[in-house]
Order: sequence, then C-alpha cells, then structure tokens
Amino acid sequence: MKFRRSGRLIDMTHYFLQHPRRLIPLTYFADKYKSAKSSISEDMVIVKQTFEQQGIGTLITLPGAAGGVKFIPKTSKEEAKAFVDDLCEMIESPERLLPGGYLYLTDILGNPKVVNKIGRLFASTFANRDIDVVMTVATKGIPLAYAVAQYLNVPVVIVRKDSKVTEGSTVSINYVSGSSKRIQTMLLAKRSLSIGSRVLIIDDFMKAGGTVNGMISLLEEFQATVEGIGVLVESEDIEERLVDEYISLVKLCDVDTRGKQVRVTEGNYFQYYS
Amino acid sequence: MKFRRSGRLIDMTHYFLQHPRRLIPLTYFADKYKSAKSSISEDMVIVKQTFEQQGIGTLITLPGAAGGVKFIPKTSKEEAKAFVDDLCEMIESPERLLPGGYLYLTDILGNPKVVNKIGRLFASTFANRDIDVVMTVATKGIPLAYAVAQYLNVPVVIVRKDSKVTEGSTVSINYVSGSSKRIQTMLLAKRSLSIGSRVLIIDDFMKAGGTVNGMISLLEEFQATVEGIGVLVESEDIEERLVDEYISLVKLCDVDTRGKQVRVTEGNYFQYYS
Repeated sequence: MKFRRSGRLIDMTHYFLQHPRRLIPLTYFADKYKSAKSSISEDMVIVKQTFEQQGIGTLITLPGAAGGVKFIPKTSKEEAKAFVDDLCEMIESPERLLPGGYLYLTDILGNPKVVNKIGRLFASTFANRDIDVVMTVATKGIPLAYAVAQYLNVPVVIVRKDSKVTEGSTVSINYVSGSSKRIQTMLLAKRSLSIGSRVLIIDDFMKAGGTVNGMISLLEEFQATVEGIGVLVESEDIEERLVDEYISLVKLCDVDTRGKQVRVTEGNYFQYYS
Repeated sequence: MKFRRSGRLIDMTHYFLQHPRRLIPLTYFADKYKSAKSSISEDMVIVKQTFEQQGIGTLITLPGAAGGVKFIPKTSKEEAKAFVDDLCEMIESPERLLPGGYLYLTDILGNPKVVNKIGRLFASTFANRDIDVVMTVATKGIPLAYAVAQYLNVPVVIVRKDSKVTEGSTVSINYVSGSSKRIQTMLLAKRSLSIGSRVLIIDDFMKAGGTVNGMISLLEEFQATVEGIGVLVESEDIEERLVDEYISLVKLCDVDTRGKQVRVTEGNYFQYYS
C-alpha cells in the first residue's frame, strides 16, 4: 500500500508513541510506506516540530548505517507544574486522612489517565539514564511502575511481601520498616531480574524510606545498581530518612490527624527537571 | 498558534490515542488549532481512514450540537491472531511449569508492551459495552487491568486478599477457592467502588474460577453488575467450572508436571470477536 504524507504522519505518530526510546531505522518507515528516504526525513522534521511544540516529546536522529530515529517522551515544565498543582489539590482533601498518618490514594492510583501522567513525568526525568528495568513493591506502586516503564520501554519487576506459589524460587531479605521499626521480609522471584541490572525504583508513598531501603538491599543480592528512585508522595515529618537521593512529586507536610488537616506542597521534582 | 494540516494530524492522533472512547466536540479542535470546522472535518476523514487501514481503531462521529468525535481502539483480527499465536508459543515453553500446575508468567506480565497488547485485545471485545470500571484481584492481574482500563478510559479497582491500613474501611467476603476447596477472604475498600457500577473483571489466570466467582460475590455487596470477564490464560482440565461466561486468550491443555510438558491452544477469544 502506498501512503500519502498525511497517512504517514498519522501512522508514524502512533508508532512512535507505542515505541518510546527505541531506535527505528529510517528504512523501516521507507519500506512500510514504500516511500523515498528523503520523504521520510521530511516527515520526521514535521513530527519532531509538532511533538516539541505540543510538549509530547522529541525525536533524536542518529546518522549513519546503524542510525535511525528515536522518540523521547517529555513533559513540558508548564504542563508538569500544572499537573503537580492539580495533584497537590487532590491530595490535600481532609477526607483522605487515614489512621497512622496515611493517605487514601486509591482513587488517584486507580485512574489510568492520572497514573500515565505521573509515569510520563518520571520518565521525562529519567529518560537520559541507562535503565534496564523498573522495580516496585506490591501493591500500590504497581500501576505507577508500569506507567513509567511503558514510557521508558523497559520491563517491570515486582517485589512482594508475601511468597506466592506461582513465581518459582525467590530471593528474600529482611528489612526494618522505617516508621514502625519492625522487621519485615520482602522477596523477588529469582528469574525475574538479571544479575547486574540497572534499576529504577518507583513507589507510591515514602515515609522514612524503609521499604525503598529494603529494595536497595534486595538489589544487592542481584548485584544490581540503583539508577534512580521516584516516589509519588513523600512524607516530610521524618526524624531520620533512610534514603538520600530520590525524586518526589508531592510532599506531605503538617498532617494533623486530630484536626483532620493535611497540608501538601510540591515535591523536589523540579529541582531535577532539565 | 496556527496549525497546518500536517501538524494538526500529528497532534490529533496523539490526542485521540490519549483519550479513547471520549466524545470530543469538533469545536475543541477548531479552537485549539484556530481552524475552520470544515478543515477539522476533513482532518477527521484522513485520521479515520488511516486508523482503520492500520488496525489502530476507528473514529465515530456523532452529529448535532452535542455531537463530536470518538476514538474507539480496535485490534484487527489478523493482528490479534498473530499476537495470540505468539503468546501461545511463549507460554508453551516447559521451563514455565511450576509445582501445582501453575505457570511462570511473571516475565510476560512484566513486559508493558505485551501487557498493552493484551489490554487492547480485551478492550476491542468489550468496547461496545457500558463499562464503568475494571476490577481485578492483587497482584498478577493488576497490570492487565490497567492496560484494559486505559483503552476503555475507565478507572480500576483492586480487590485484595489481605487488609491494608491505607485504604480505610473495607467490605469483605469469604469464598471457596475452586481448586484447593479452601475458604479464603477477599476485600475491597468501601470508597473504591460506587453502588450500582457496571464492572469488567480482568485476571491473569483462571483454573476452576473460584477467585473470579469470589469477585462476583463481592460485587453483589456493592449492587454492581458484571458486564464481562476476561482472563489471559484459562486452564482446561477442570472438573467443574464455577464461572460460565468469560473470554480467554490462551487455553492450557495437557499439563504434564512429571514429563515437564505443556500444551497450549488459543482461548475462546475469537468466538466473541466481532
């Protein structure tokens, strides 16, 4: 089938969005659309320009025989700011307050559109790092981890706090929960992570950081390295944070469980925005 | 900013893909691109044609003042067939066999690209039903549920087998696991599902159907109705199936744990393909 430019642009846009961070040879498109490489190159210029203008991302072109074009998803600073403001407003509602200073986030994490936006924000920040896999802990972090992984074009591994029959042999570690100071166990299926992987940790909520710290210890068992840590909400009122470097979208301050008041500000995300 | 047609087509494609099943008034695009409605209508024809040719989906136009255009994601039968074949081949590998006749699916479920394709297949089947929410049970079903929900443009609710402090009050039921015949508990946060919701149940694996059956009982507590059930893999060798109507992509036959042999065929998906 021969394509006109308009058809090519639509199909290419779909293809790029489905295949972020993958190097696509120009010949792939030239063959698919039975078009000259020069026409494809012109198409790329238009797609790149529109993606950049609209804050969708950008295209990176690598020249040479092994070259091609790569779509890098990105969120513009204005869009990110507006979205984080919306998040703060949603989260600040006093009805979210649960016993123990926790927050009800189930509705936010249950909305695929919001989850995808969060994923795109984190993926924008970590787009330039070499990441092989996104890791999270069951259950709340899972949708966020998939959303980030989708934009980074890498798989997800899920750490569990309970052993399941359906994963084969596992590696387990003990860790100390930062806030309750209790010893807990977490485990990961042996097959699910290759030795030496470069890992991005994603989670929904971080108090003292015990869980994230546990994941870091677990990664040592796989000789894996932590390339980044992203959490949706961090809790501010912490005596001793167990994790130093992380990126948060929202920061929880002044949780007054008696007066049913929550105050929320933007996290440290924009300090790392480039 | 004024847009040329090429820029509009790229941005529209992105917008449609991000907003499946949502009615978008033509004025939205006319305003955004500062273009005449007649030009936007012409754009729609081109987008619709390309989406249909490429098996991406279709656009439905509703006339009148309250009208607009809606993107319905779809998978072509050929693409679906090829994908289910690939899935069967992946799943048939004897190394996947785990004790108890379970299968190791963690790598497949950990791949966002595969998970998204599965989601698109289910969403194609259920696109014409009135669905308010996708429901699954933690943990394995979660990525599949989000993938389907994303294409259907609805939220996800997650049933748990353990109570968590961070969800507030819950409704719980007891159910009998179909294969082990043991009594188990599952629960759902009260706030997470509105009374009377129309629900699509998605899960990764179904043996006798005890878990799905439990979810159906739980839905009765919310006066919710089941609009459909989709499972990735169903196990064939079942004396008494607890659930009648469901759609499966892959069917597991002849699991020989001693001889380490798995035989797999396509599920009943294509009986419901329209």
